[in-house]
Amino acid sequence: MNRVRIRDLGISIGRYKTGQYNAITDISGVMVGHTTLSYKGAENRMIQTGVTAILPHSGSLFQEKVMGSSYVINGFGKTVGTIQLQELGVIESPILLTNTLSVPAVMEGTIRYLLDQNSQIGDTSGTVNVIVGECNDGYLNDIRGLHVRPEHAYQAIQFAKSGKVEEGCVGAGTGMSCLGFKGGIGTSSRVASFGEQSYTIGALVVSNFGEEKDLRIPAGGRLHRAGEEEEMPDGSIMIILATDAPLNERQLGRLAKRATFGLSRTGSYAAHGSGDIVIAFSTAHRVPHEPDQGTIPYSFMREDGKWISQLFEMTVEAVEEAIWNSICMATTTEGNKGRVREAIPYHILFEPTCKGGMLT
Amino acid sequence: MNRVRIRDLGISIGRYKTGQYNAITDISGVMVGHTTLSYKGAENRMIQTGVTAILPHSGSLFQEKVMGSSYVINGFGKTVGTIQLQELGVIESPILLTNTLSVPAVMEGTIRYLLDQNSQIGDTSGTVNVIVGECNDGYLNDIRGLHVRPEHAYQAIQFAKSGKVEEGCVGAGTGMSCLGFKGGIGTSSRVASFGEQSYTIGALVVSNFGEEKDLRIPAGGRLHRAGEEEEMPDGSIMIILATDAPLNERQLGRLAKRATFGLSRTGSYAAHGSGDIVIAFSTAHRVPHEPDQGTIPYSFMREDGKWISQLFEMTVEAVEEAIWNSICMATTTEGNKGRVREAIPYHILFEPTCKGGMLT
Amino acid sequence: MNRVRIRDLGISIGRYKTGQYNAITDISGVMVGHTTLSYKGAENRMIQTGVTAILPHSGSLFQEKVMGSSYVINGFGKTVGTIQLQELGVIESPILLTNTLSVPAVMEGTIRYLLDQNSQIGDTSGTVNVIVGECNDGYLNDIRGLHVRPEHAYQAIQFAKSGKVEEGCVGAGTGMSCLGFKGGIGTSSRVASFGEQSYTIGALVVSNFGEEKDLRIPAGGRLHRAGEEEEMPDGSIMIILATDAPLNERQLGRLAKRATFGLSRTGSYAAHGSGDIVIAFSTAHRVPHEPDQGTIPYSFMREDGKWISQLFEMTVEAVEEAIWNSICMATTTEGNKGRVREAIPYHILFEPTCKGGMLT
Amino acid sequence: MNRVRIRDLGISIGRYKTGQYNAITDISGVMVGHTTLSYKGAENRMIQTGVTAILPHSGSLFQEKVMGSSYVINGFGKTVGTIQLQELGVIESPILLTNTLSVPAVMEGTIRYLLDQNSQIGDTSGTVNVIVGECNDGYLNDIRGLHVRPEHAYQAIQFAKSGKVEEGCVGAGTGMSCLGFKGGIGTSSRVASFGEQSYTIGALVVSNFGEEKDLRIPAGGRLHRAGEEEEMPDGSIMIILATDAPLNERQLGRLAKRATFGLSRTGSYAAHGSGDIVIAFSTAHRVPHEPDQGTIPYSFMREDGKWISQLFEMTVEAVEEAIWNSICMATTTEGNKGRVREAIPYHILFEPTCKGGMLT
Repeated sequence: MNRVRIRDLGISIGRYKTGQYNAITDISGVMVGHTTLSYKGAENRMIQTGVTAILPHSGSLFQEKVMGSSYVINGFGKTVGTIQLQELGVIESPILLTNTLSVPAVMEGTIRYLLDQNSQIGDTSGTVNVIVGECNDGYLNDIRGLHVRPEHAYQAIQFAKSGKVEEGCVGAGTGMSCLGFKGGIGTSSRVASFGEQSYTIGALVVSNFGEEKDLRIPAGGRLHRAGEEEEMPDGSIMIILATDAPLNERQLGRLAKRATFGLSRTGSYAAHGSGDIVIAFSTAHRVPHEPDQGTIPYSFMREDGKWISQLFEMTVEAVEEAIWNSICMATTTEGNKGRVREAIPYHILFEPTCKGGMLT
Repeated sequence: MNRVRIRDLGISIGRYKTGQYNAITDISGVMVGHTTLSYKGAENRMIQTGVTAILPHSGSLFQEKVMGSSYVINGFGKTVGTIQLQELGVIESPILLTNTLSVPAVMEGTIRYLLDQNSQIGDTSGTVNVIVGECNDGYLNDIRGLHVRPEHAYQAIQFAKSGKVEEGCVGAGTGMSCLGFKGGIGTSSRVASFGEQSYTIGALVVSNFGEEKDLRIPAGGRLHRAGEEEEMPDGSIMIILATDAPLNERQLGRLAKRATFGLSRTGSYAAHGSGDIVIAFSTAHRVPHEPDQGTIPYSFMREDGKWISQLFEMTVEAVEEAIWNSICMATTTEGNKGRVREAIPYHILFEPTCKGGMLT
Repeated sequence: MNRVRIRDLGISIGRYKTGQYNAITDISGVMVGHTTLSYKGAENRMIQTGVTAILPHSGSLFQEKVMGSSYVINGFGKTVGTIQLQELGVIESPILLTNTLSVPAVMEGTIRYLLDQNSQIGDTSGTVNVIVGECNDGYLNDIRGLHVRPEHAYQAIQFAKSGKVEEGCVGAGTGMSCLGFKGGIGTSSRVASFGEQSYTIGALVVSNFGEEKDLRIPAGGRLHRAGEEEEMPDGSIMIILATDAPLNERQLGRLAKRATFGLSRTGSYAAHGSGDIVIAFSTAHRVPHEPDQGTIPYSFMREDGKWISQLFEMTVEAVEEAIWNSICMATTTEGNKGRVREAIPYHILFEPTCKGGMLT
Repeated sequence: MNRVRIRDLGISIGRYKTGQYNAITDISGVMVGHTTLSYKGAENRMIQTGVTAILPHSGSLFQEKVMGSSYVINGFGKTVGTIQLQELGVIESPILLTNTLSVPAVMEGTIRYLLDQNSQIGDTSGTVNVIVGECNDGYLNDIRGLHVRPEHAYQAIQFAKSGKVEEGCVGAGTGMSCLGFKGGIGTSSRVASFGEQSYTIGALVVSNFGEEKDLRIPAGGRLHRAGEEEEMPDGSIMIILATDAPLNERQLGRLAKRATFGLSRTGSYAAHGSGDIVIAFSTAHRVPHEPDQGTIPYSFMREDGKWISQLFEMTVEAVEEAIWNSICMATTTEGNKGRVREAIPYHILFEPTCKGGMLT
């Protein structure tokens, strides 16, 4: 079946315009790369997993860091790199996404990439902080097999490019499930005017949360039908936010928190076993690893009135649409142990909603 | 016009059943009291404000504390008492709500109440931690006049009772505005089975956030019509959560965070100037001020599977419905400087939604 | 007895130089004011308490905010204003200190001051966030009498001046106890070169923590003698840090955390009942309430190498010395119920230390 | 030279008694294992690094978790696993320590160990959260060579045992430096009575922070001599705290924060590039992965008076002594690029202190 984005179904989310690609790559310089592992392995084990890399810019991130922040919606997750991100307010590596048990392999691959790129790391210049997020694709993927290796992360970084972003069953999204259907990678963006300037917000998600009963139809707003309750031990969503608006690390933390609002509108309530974590960065400034001056000039968006609120609202819209795109673009996938996760039938998104749906 | 709760309009939120009163007082022992100030003062200034008190139980809260936690959705707010709440995980006073500039008067009134009730405070036994939350009712109320005095807080505590809770333009909700209409006090509850036990979640809100353009129709799900953009310097919502489920302070913190999801579904995105703060407590255990033993026995809900997630979902529903109740029950109110805030016309909640509503 | 600062006893703390006054007022523009209440009231009750105000600059703080942050060392405290400080990273009012139960009176006095100074607050411009910290002076002061009133806060703000700062039994320090002796207000500063610039760190404390057994002699380093264990229900220390170094709100948060290290060296371990809270601000930039441009230019100190560490070390030294000054400058004080708190005899600071001091 | 612990030099820290081994293993069930890599590799590169594992008990930690918490003193660090630890309040894996760039290898080795031990992880039961801390041993160790491999972590876990703990240049401490001298692994414990019960606090550190100029002599209290300032890009300390006192996750968080006070007394001020992170756990309760009942009974220490403060003070002492032990037990070590880090000469710990030591 030909898969399309939610906007191509005639459903638009919110009131702001999208950027050119309706993608996180609408922020100039941001690049995305995927390594997809989808094959039958030994003993008929299905490998349905991968790695996705988001690069805030194409230069040396270690030498020219970007301001960033993170926010934990629900901490049943294993994302690495947030302690230093919160302390220093900068991102100095690509942001990597993968399955839960492959975090170490992807972390090592990213470290190797950065060691190759920067000979002074761990020698004349201290170490480097790497950010890797994850969701549990163990329903479809042979996650215990640890099939992702460091080189897959290395490749995802090298493959990263600007422009159109592949969505659905690709990279870290290959084996994910969302709201009872096949999930995966999705992205969206919003652009608006701020005085004479125009700023863009982009979101990219790996969606892996919720059951069918939780799904809130975008044009309708409530749970669609009961569905059977699933046993999903730990779902999750990773949300990456990018902007070219000149926000500092604290302002980016505020932005990151707003992802919760977009997530909520798709039906999530951040179930116990969900690792729902947001990473946000701005490309407006680069923070040099070794400044050549004692104080560094910056400029940041005023924070008194409508402007920052407008960015918040754009974020909520972009996150919601990125989630819908991850589901709309995903295809039916056969997984480990004969499990199959169906692509969402589009008519569900238009169905008359269940009024009430009281539990009995 | 006769005002009714949203459920009486035929709109039910979510899938769980409500408690007897569909109110925070469905948690046994919880009491709510209001002091309402609504009159024309000197120089034709309109006083539209008040105090609301929530008592976790009817005994001495200082002697028998309850476990609690708080969560800051957006911190443009002046709530007091959360530092000690987060450090110690207990609530040892009534929880008070009022307007932003009356926090000190209400804080002092509550301290006076506790000093009267407990002769050892500040003498043989250390001081007491008081929790006061607020929203800015300055659109309708002469907030600069500081009309709320300590005795109004004292009275709200004394007036507190169990059973049916007054909603709308009462107590701290008297002068509040929400989503372009009159807001105020609202409450709701959810009850469900957990094995052989039944536990209840209750929410009480003071709603004071958002513009009409943000309103998401419960039966429809998206913004209803453009409306004119307002200049609202700092809206807010205070959300109080109560439960009889045996949750500890950390689990209550997780519950508090879920209020965000219910808030989102009404249309909020936590605008810059919004002080959106959640206080949660459990009545399952009482923590003695001076225990008579070295270790204290407790029991807490298992946290491995569906149970805690079920509580999360119940919380999301109760918060959303409490907000709708606060709006549905509020009446058109004349305020300071000739301003008027209209009660929401109920038909709006059923109107065909605007598909798209793209900004131009 | 003539009281002197610790440096006048020949004891210097650390390796950095002090500023002109060895006080928080060495940061240009910072002003300190005290209102002292020390008298016998009705029924022979001793009132030994007061208010101290720290003004980051002499202009309208609401119109021209300073960047700030806070840090909770131990949260058995009732400081108000930190939620918004952490969300927005700015201080827009004087910082007030008083006794625990007088927080509301001082909060109201400060709000009244700001309403008088700014007619738009609560009218055309939203509300204002006030910061008030506290310690429990109930051992010497009739704290239940709530003798501090709003006008005392108003006066402390009006009395504020630059230059030499009164220390010991003055303002909020009037009734405080520290390490078994009389405590109170203390201040200190450090200045150093950063390239071609010179930056200053200033600390001001209200000391009210610890027992004599905890005291660590500055020239010696360990507990001096057993002393009798006291029953102090809730001691505390409030620590205010000021700097003219161009630090942003996150960097100021890092600075605030370092106060712990200075506090530790005097003997504190942050006992359970201690409310140990730090407020830090930088005068390097003023953040306009209503900017006249969309983005605001700033410059911040580089954070890659020795500079920020040097500021950390200066902070540790200034906090330690401010605490010693608060004790060395305090005089023997008669309090409520016939209690007396002795001024520290200076010889104790030089006594041979107890080697070992094992509990038996 | 024969190396001894600081207590064997006649220097005792604080006033509480130590446990039998004066080690973290004095908490019944706690085990420690080391894998040490110390050899000359290809191209004359010196490998001076390793892995240390701390096991809260000898059973299946995934099946029977312990309550825990963490605290970030300074976040220039790459510790993994704290997001979930803070969300859920439990530790479900061994705690591993290694060098900064070997975190992924050790994380993967620990995951492999847990997958082997628990066939349901990532299959019927969700994934597992692993805790790995680190310091940068790049001054002595060829850290860029990534010589630690997953099997070294596996071995350290398998080698873990109770009783006496090896200290100094062993495991993760092999290549570390502290206060200008050779650092490494150190441990200490404190035991005291609480009513009729006796509880123990144990600390284990990997010390890798500070310069000689920072060293505060335990019997003297101030910096000993100027020393030359070093260029240490990122030092660090990892601090593991264990107790058998019945503390819940919040109380353990309070305990973890007190490690700062012990660290301070050795001379640290948590320099910019220091990753100073504390992990604390209690063995008093085991939290079942799949409880067989809906609510779980616990008992926790009363928190109103002296008891919790006594635990705080014991923690401060144990951390300080563990750091001194790490330095006193370390031996002179030859590292990469011909660098040598000297063992501390013991006379320094007794030298007359520099009075003043003002910078010029």
